[in-house]
Amino acid sequence: MGGQRQIRQLTRQQAMRKLASVPVGHIVFTERALPAVRPVNHILDNGQVIISSHDGAAIVDLTSSDHATVVAYQADQIDPATHTGWAATITGLAHLINDPQQAARHRRALHPWITGAMNHIIRIDPQIITGYEQTADTPAATP
Amino acid sequence: MGGQRQIRQLTRQQAMRKLASVPVGHIVFTERALPAVRPVNHILDNGQVIISSHDGAAIVDLTSSDHATVVAYQADQIDPATHTGWAATITGLAHLINDPQQAARHRRALHPWITGAMNHIIRIDPQIITGYEQTADTPAATP
Repeated sequence: MGGQRQIRQLTRQQAMRKLASVPVGHIVFTERALPAVRPVNHILDNGQVIISSHDGAAIVDLTSSDHATVVAYQADQIDPATHTGWAATITGLAHLINDPQQAARHRRALHPWITGAMNHIIRIDPQIITGYEQTADTPAATP
Repeated sequence: MGGQRQIRQLTRQQAMRKLASVPVGHIVFTERALPAVRPVNHILDNGQVIISSHDGAAIVDLTSSDHATVVAYQADQIDPATHTGWAATITGLAHLINDPQQAARHRRALHPWITGAMNHIIRIDPQIITGYEQTADTPAATP
């Protein structure tokens, strides 16, 4: 039958590879007790997700406090026409990077889609990593 | 200068129109005290966002309780190459639709990207509506 789809869970490594394969994802956090989400560019560095943000951004205020801030970071690629695609999410602590040299190195690698001075670099340590992929069903390739 | 970009806030109406123009967005909520996000298909009906979900989904459990559940719903279209695009977010209460006829009507209009029985229909009442758009800078068309 055509049109069948198969969904499978991604391993941690597969989910991280999917994240690394796209430039934009979603940072998800809690702002004044409300769920909040922003699309941002990311890079992966040594297994950690690196994003940048601007002065006054809620996520900068949250991560510059002394409290640990738990965030989710998610990316996906979904084809609404074929109903295939994947989604990958990490959950973990977000930290503002205070070391100027480290921040400068990440800033050079990041290319934010949004215009403006992205002065602040945030690192997210993945503690929970999940993902799934839905593909068009193809006959099993067992010989 | 080429390559300049302009960012502007969207009105409530513009943000809702952007949301309505795409089939997939992100439902953002809190699950066991952690930020959570899932890509889902949506439709707009009478100014409300309608999504579907499956048995056992965290968002179904949350909205089927007696407590009001605050969620965010977000969609965007971003071109990483040109650094143009938009993002729109609503924040509001999510309700499981219990009326079978109303649920059936929405179910016919929704086309979930993910395979599986999407038995549950959830309505989100937008209370906060925000959005922004970044466009390539073009000369002002003032005569």
